[in-house]
Amino acid sequence: MTDNRLDRKIPSLTLLGLGVMGTALARTWLAAGHDLTVWNRTESKTEPLTATGAKATAAAAEAVAENTLVVLCLLDDESIDETLWDTDLQGKDLVNLTTSTPAQARARADWATARGARFLDGGIMAVPPMIGIPEAGGYVFYSGSAALFETHRSTLSVPAGTKYVGEDAGFAALYDVALLSAMTGMFAGVAHAFALIGAEDIDPKEFAPLLAGWLTTMTFSVHKTADQLQSGDYAKDVVSNLAMQVAGSATLLRTAEEQGVSPELLTPYMTLMERRLAAGHGDEDTTGVVALLRR
Amino acid sequence: MTDNRLDRKIPSLTLLGLGVMGTALARTWLAAGHDLTVWNRTESKTEPLTATGAKATAAAAEAVAENTLVVLCLLDDESIDETLWDTDLQGKDLVNLTTSTPAQARARADWATARGARFLDGGIMAVPPMIGIPEAGGYVFYSGSAALFETHRSTLSVPAGTKYVGEDAGFAALYDVALLSAMTGMFAGVAHAFALIGAEDIDPKEFAPLLAGWLTTMTFSVHKTADQLQSGDYAKDVVSNLAMQVAGSATLLRTAEEQGVSPELLTPYMTLMERRLAAGHGDEDTTGVVALLRR
Repeated sequence: MTDNRLDRKIPSLTLLGLGVMGTALARTWLAAGHDLTVWNRTESKTEPLTATGAKATAAAAEAVAENTLVVLCLLDDESIDETLWDTDLQGKDLVNLTTSTPAQARARADWATARGARFLDGGIMAVPPMIGIPEAGGYVFYSGSAALFETHRSTLSVPAGTKYVGEDAGFAALYDVALLSAMTGMFAGVAHAFALIGAEDIDPKEFAPLLAGWLTTMTFSVHKTADQLQSGDYAKDVVSNLAMQVAGSATLLRTAEEQGVSPELLTPYMTLMERRLAAGHGDEDTTGVVALLRR
Repeated sequence: MTDNRLDRKIPSLTLLGLGVMGTALARTWLAAGHDLTVWNRTESKTEPLTATGAKATAAAAEAVAENTLVVLCLLDDESIDETLWDTDLQGKDLVNLTTSTPAQARARADWATARGARFLDGGIMAVPPMIGIPEAGGYVFYSGSAALFETHRSTLSVPAGTKYVGEDAGFAALYDVALLSAMTGMFAGVAHAFALIGAEDIDPKEFAPLLAGWLTTMTFSVHKTADQLQSGDYAKDVVSNLAMQVAGSATLLRTAEEQGVSPELLTPYMTLMERRLAAGHGDEDTTGVVALLRR
């Protein structure tokens, strides 16, 4: 076996789509020395990148023809059809970072496979300023072709960390959306908390570390919920059971009323806890709420 | 000045109320060598504690008469009236750990002061198993008499960490409820996330660390929101603005639909974001939602 480590070239790649995220990705690959070909529907977006070494093409098909690895970071799933409808994808390694739902990603994987390409879908768990800054903690979920992922792992690791979550092309989008959905709930709770202190002489910046610290501590419950869901025993290791949680809700609602804050962000969850309690599960944890959400 | 460290006695105290939390508190004070007098409406609850050194009295007034420091951990605010309506509180240091709203705590402070007692209200940020276990990260918010807090600080520090948050007797309850409310939002988001993956071949226990890690990372936004609220500039340091957040909601809702999950825990927050966007604040962060909650 020849040791050809010294001959190893930095891989070249193509990127379609230069929105804020695409541009951030492009910059990190250029900075890491990759030969990068870019295309964007509005051509002016390519200029700052060609000025720092990228090659730009007028047509998407030309950019695709340049390299085996083709990364898509377009507006939405429909834009992929519009951009690549007549492009030869035979032998290409398509990495789709375009925001998609799990079903869109699965359909896109079939579409790519039918055209002779390997397909990997990605869900970016970062905002553009976090790209290329490992300390920021951003990363990308990938799912789909494990072979493609292994082939291009080092290139894909340049803009952000990578987490491969399975051959199912829909999983990256599913994990992505699940985490963003949970974050939306957390943001709703945080908005309610700030509204509660809003009428008082309390400095939000002194309150913030207490709130952030508490939420961080309470993420331990995520592991407990997972354990209960896996075992099917929702009363396992319960500390504050559903009956106690529902009783405690009264103090939260009364305080909201006192402070002049609408409870609308909290009541849907409380309603589900009450439904589960009424169904006779007072000794369980709140985990049964998960089942009530499923249709 | 005489060094009387060797003469220093471990302070004695009285505790009224031996529910699960009261019992946990009592155990830590007994274990730390404090002389503890307890009273509970249902007298049998005192037995395990008298067996390990506590003194129990038949009447609440007798327990109160035993010590200057009197801790209340009763069922609710009303129980305080029922328990202490005819008890002499002159010269007492009342520490109220009974679950209360801010307004209840403030009224209780006036009530105690009128009876010649100093008053401190507490909000326990811990469940009973965390009491006496510093590593568990639980603590108690205190507000009200700073003099009382300073006098009994070391005794109050025995069951859990302490955070004194001001002379306003309502602040401890307000901070407590604000943090629990934010946690309720986070739990709602977590329930939605687990519901999304529920129909797939995904191990909840492998998903849990990703979810917990992401939520922990995203608590950085709490500090940014506080900074924006304090400055009044909701567009300050915005990364993903309201217009982008509202656009992103569509993917979250479509995925919920695909996965057969009700969006009811996410839609109230999305509705407020849309209202704020419609009012012309698309370039701001989502912080304006806080104002929409206030009546």
